[in-house]
Amino acid sequence: MKFKNNTPTWIWYPGDYEIWLGNEMNNRRTERGAFFPPFWKTASHYVVVEFSKRLNLAASEEIEIAVEGRYNVKLDGKLQFGSPKRFTLPAGEHNLNIKIHNQATPPALFIKGKTVNTDATWKVTFEDKEWIDESGKASDTSVTIYMDAGYWNFNTAEQKPSQFRLATKPQQAVKEEKVKDGKLIDFGKETFGYIYLHGLKGNGTINLYYGESPEEALDTEYCETLDRIYVDSNKVTDLALDVTTDFKDDYTLIESKAFRYVYIEVSPSVRIDRVTMLYEYLPVDYRGTFRCNDEEINKIWDIGAYTMHLTTREFFIDGIKRDRWVWSGDAIQSYLMNYYIFFDCESVKRTIWLLRGKDPVTSHSNTIMDYTFYWFLSIYDYYIYSGDHAFVVQIYPHMVTLMDYVIGRTNPNGMVEGMIGDWVFVDWADGFLDKKGELSFEQVLFCKSLETMALCAKLVDDEEGMNKYAQLANNLQEKLLPAFWDESKQALVHNRIHGEKSDTVTRYSNMFSVFFNYLNENQKQAIKTSVLLNDDILKITTPYMRFYELEALCALGEQEEVMKEMKSYWGDMLRLGATTFWEKYNPDEKGIEHLAMYGRPYGKSLCHAWGGQALFIC
Amino acid sequence: MKFKNNTPTWIWYPGDYEIWLGNEMNNRRTERGAFFPPFWKTASHYVVVEFSKRLNLAASEEIEIAVEGRYNVKLDGKLQFGSPKRFTLPAGEHNLNIKIHNQATPPALFIKGKTVNTDATWKVTFEDKEWIDESGKASDTSVTIYMDAGYWNFNTAEQKPSQFRLATKPQQAVKEEKVKDGKLIDFGKETFGYIYLHGLKGNGTINLYYGESPEEALDTEYCETLDRIYVDSNKVTDLALDVTTDFKDDYTLIESKAFRYVYIEVSPSVRIDRVTMLYEYLPVDYRGTFRCNDEEINKIWDIGAYTMHLTTREFFIDGIKRDRWVWSGDAIQSYLMNYYIFFDCESVKRTIWLLRGKDPVTSHSNTIMDYTFYWFLSIYDYYIYSGDHAFVVQIYPHMVTLMDYVIGRTNPNGMVEGMIGDWVFVDWADGFLDKKGELSFEQVLFCKSLETMALCAKLVDDEEGMNKYAQLANNLQEKLLPAFWDESKQALVHNRIHGEKSDTVTRYSNMFSVFFNYLNENQKQAIKTSVLLNDDILKITTPYMRFYELEALCALGEQEEVMKEMKSYWGDMLRLGATTFWEKYNPDEKGIEHLAMYGRPYGKSLCHAWGGQALFIC
Repeated sequence: MKFKNNTPTWIWYPGDYEIWLGNEMNNRRTERGAFFPPFWKTASHYVVVEFSKRLNLAASEEIEIAVEGRYNVKLDGKLQFGSPKRFTLPAGEHNLNIKIHNQATPPALFIKGKTVNTDATWKVTFEDKEWIDESGKASDTSVTIYMDAGYWNFNTAEQKPSQFRLATKPQQAVKEEKVKDGKLIDFGKETFGYIYLHGLKGNGTINLYYGESPEEALDTEYCETLDRIYVDSNKVTDLALDVTTDFKDDYTLIESKAFRYVYIEVSPSVRIDRVTMLYEYLPVDYRGTFRCNDEEINKIWDIGAYTMHLTTREFFIDGIKRDRWVWSGDAIQSYLMNYYIFFDCESVKRTIWLLRGKDPVTSHSNTIMDYTFYWFLSIYDYYIYSGDHAFVVQIYPHMVTLMDYVIGRTNPNGMVEGMIGDWVFVDWADGFLDKKGELSFEQVLFCKSLETMALCAKLVDDEEGMNKYAQLANNLQEKLLPAFWDESKQALVHNRIHGEKSDTVTRYSNMFSVFFNYLNENQKQAIKTSVLLNDDILKITTPYMRFYELEALCALGEQEEVMKEMKSYWGDMLRLGATTFWEKYNPDEKGIEHLAMYGRPYGKSLCHAWGGQALFIC
Repeated sequence: MKFKNNTPTWIWYPGDYEIWLGNEMNNRRTERGAFFPPFWKTASHYVVVEFSKRLNLAASEEIEIAVEGRYNVKLDGKLQFGSPKRFTLPAGEHNLNIKIHNQATPPALFIKGKTVNTDATWKVTFEDKEWIDESGKASDTSVTIYMDAGYWNFNTAEQKPSQFRLATKPQQAVKEEKVKDGKLIDFGKETFGYIYLHGLKGNGTINLYYGESPEEALDTEYCETLDRIYVDSNKVTDLALDVTTDFKDDYTLIESKAFRYVYIEVSPSVRIDRVTMLYEYLPVDYRGTFRCNDEEINKIWDIGAYTMHLTTREFFIDGIKRDRWVWSGDAIQSYLMNYYIFFDCESVKRTIWLLRGKDPVTSHSNTIMDYTFYWFLSIYDYYIYSGDHAFVVQIYPHMVTLMDYVIGRTNPNGMVEGMIGDWVFVDWADGFLDKKGELSFEQVLFCKSLETMALCAKLVDDEEGMNKYAQLANNLQEKLLPAFWDESKQALVHNRIHGEKSDTVTRYSNMFSVFFNYLNENQKQAIKTSVLLNDDILKITTPYMRFYELEALCALGEQEEVMKEMKSYWGDMLRLGATTFWEKYNPDEKGIEHLAMYGRPYGKSLCHAWGGQALFIC
């Protein structure tokens, strides 16, 4: 995570590569052969940026310049002819500026010299405001807002950032059987990659139906993803993408899919010798390990780790089959697990940048109010785990504008409630969750976000901001109990509408208030019995919120209960044959009910990042 | 200008194609072989947008779909397989949605059917906020902000908007002479295009030095633009662009340049038979004509019209040699001239969109305070000339956010003054122009901008906005005379610093106040002698501000004086051999002094849009 300065690496405007790469990824979702982009605003990189470095060279040196985009080179304000690939810098103090235009991919720069190398110490701006006086010289009163450059790990001129691809390696099927008119191929466990057809010959159509379950793969009408290709001697046309490619003997599908099973129907005039796949993954180090004397817990860790790895890709995504999108609420749990298993800080930062997008803020993160709050929380979490102060400095201005948006939408009580265009999510619940008025859950997250703002303001020496956010957090926290605590129920109620406390108690705000420490000891202990261990309160059926529920129980000293719950809830999924953890698991459901969600028979993701946090609880 | 609905045409998110095309153009500036992008923030198009149309079809029909980008097709919410190029719409009421992702060029759509065709009645959004309820259905409380689609004149599937190029036609040189080691070629008048080398043979370098004057073309050290190419049998490498292309006999330079003269140096081993050019232009109709019994005035009109046509390109640019950028203050004068000669409304709208860019507003238009104000003024002007109400509706939200920016930077007196990052331009003056404190000129433009906001608010039925802006305009107008009118000087003074009226009088605010009607009759008449016809007041040396000066004199009934001035000022340029009008003309200068500006010997543009408004005065 710590960047070794003066090692040459590709640099860009901070957040811009991340946003661009995220768009590439978010726009790879398909649903039964149809392209399915996100339904929130897609941001874009700055198309013209200028990199600069103040130099002080003992001797002249030649630098090698590699660029993504059209560019110029300015030494001490003087433009050089053309776009030089090599350039000799004279000894002494000099200003080197390189300005790049690139609409299609982020402007990026790589410079390698004896002592002059692009790294995180370079400055970059997207609008160098220059003042020109009558003589044509830039005036002294010009002002430019510079940021420290962004980077990842592209450390040679040839490794162009826009060419980044995840790694792949061949993987074999474990079982193949003839079913109906085709073949059902089983890769033995949930996986992600490109189907590889060996010895392809003939003319005709091949239909591939993917499934996380055999039921899904065999249900050609309702499986969530599929591919259709047309073979014509030495050419294959991908019928969804309308792309034709030449091949010889073997053909790899163009887009990667998530599946354990694939059901392949081949027209009689087409022959395939063998079907394998290219497993596609982000190379990460497994830094965290876990072993104990309970084999079930060990298995839960292993399956959690595998679930995590499958969903740790260009970014931390939700699930691998369906959305393959970056969602803020899902991501914050991935970050936490990541700290304990991969400690891959770059993936955390990439995901945070992508989720933030660009100003102006026109909606909540992923359009979801709670997800905006998790975004704030994730930054201080990241700082605590990494100590990466530079990142907080880079992202802080973007925290401020997002918080401006939130504060601009508070009601006269200083509380948030769902306005037109806001999605108040909380959780997927098997029962009615009222989303109207002031939800105690949203206020608790809002309050924690304001505290986070104050902490980060302090880190970047914004004293005015620190005082402002601390005051706002304090004001809101003082209102929480009067607004939502119900003495007779010994719990925070779910919401308040037009000043009226509702009668409903749900788990969400109660469990968060426990580990955010918004309650006194008596109240916390009361909540344990009145809410957390009370079967009359609407049960949580997503691992997403079960995680926080168990965190609250841990905070209340209920480690034994948590262990029991883990072995039951995550253990149950294993007993049902899970090879990765699911988006949702309701023990009351049976058989193929476990596959359905969103009103679709296979809508549920069986490999979902938020299913994997058993890791963390371990 | 009026759009004929239901004629199929390519559509996009309004402003997005204009911003993208403008970036292409603004990023074509070069300075002596170096790439020279603008120094203000470059905006970018929305990379994912959704087009939609509510249909009511008497009979089913097949549509042809052409798209720039990857896309999906949804009929009544159901995604269709792949990205169909033909699709059959059933009879009856239906919702058709097409969502497109395109990073490199703006997402654009063309649909042609029997009755269903893409046109300005289609809706488009960049963030269709959907709410998804537990059942997976979009909820009723979803909200989407739709705009009417943007379009131009790409009326067949093959005419992809991203492929747009200006027209070209061959043009011959009128004179060729051997000078020093090369040849000086004269095209007879200022022109714009691509040098065309006939019968190119051999191996070696060719240097091309462009000049608006022979002095510039022959000054290989200081001419503003040049090209260097290297010929190697049947390949040419453009050394600035580092692009190698095959050729046979003839070679056309890759980038177009502005010039009358080109000086060509060819290495001994290279032969060129003949040099011509491809003149590059926007095809427009000459709708306005002018003829009178004064041949000098007729000539001024003709040269003005030619200057206008050269600077009327993808957008209205400033001058053709140097910047080739879109500047708001220059553009508003081009719009006015355009109404009288081409009446090309699409070019006006394109330029207004490009100048506005995207939110958030982080600086003034082109970084210049006065240019922001001209931008507001240009919209109501355009409405008055065109009656195009739909455009005002599309652009109004963008006027509001720009005005929010301006109002957010007013001082406690409600006036604007230059803050860090603001360029207070006014004019290029041959003398000191104080830019500090409250300039009367900027307040006059600000006041007119607020009036414009009120007028446009009324046009779009924003009653609250109308009242707000009218009130602000009124408040400011009431402060103008108390703040700046000097009874002893019978004029508005130039500025006020810390509440102190300055002693200086300049022409700018005085002439604008005349034709904006911010003065009473006595004051106006007083200004005529105390300022406009007073040789002790700093003289204007740009056609840019001379235009407004003459407009003020016309408003005061001084047509005779204006005629005299026109024949003298613009007539003088003709007598000096101008074939287009200049960026600046100071009658006190001599010989090559006329070529210099910005501290560079050929810095001045000899074909500048704001030189051409003699047209309008005619």
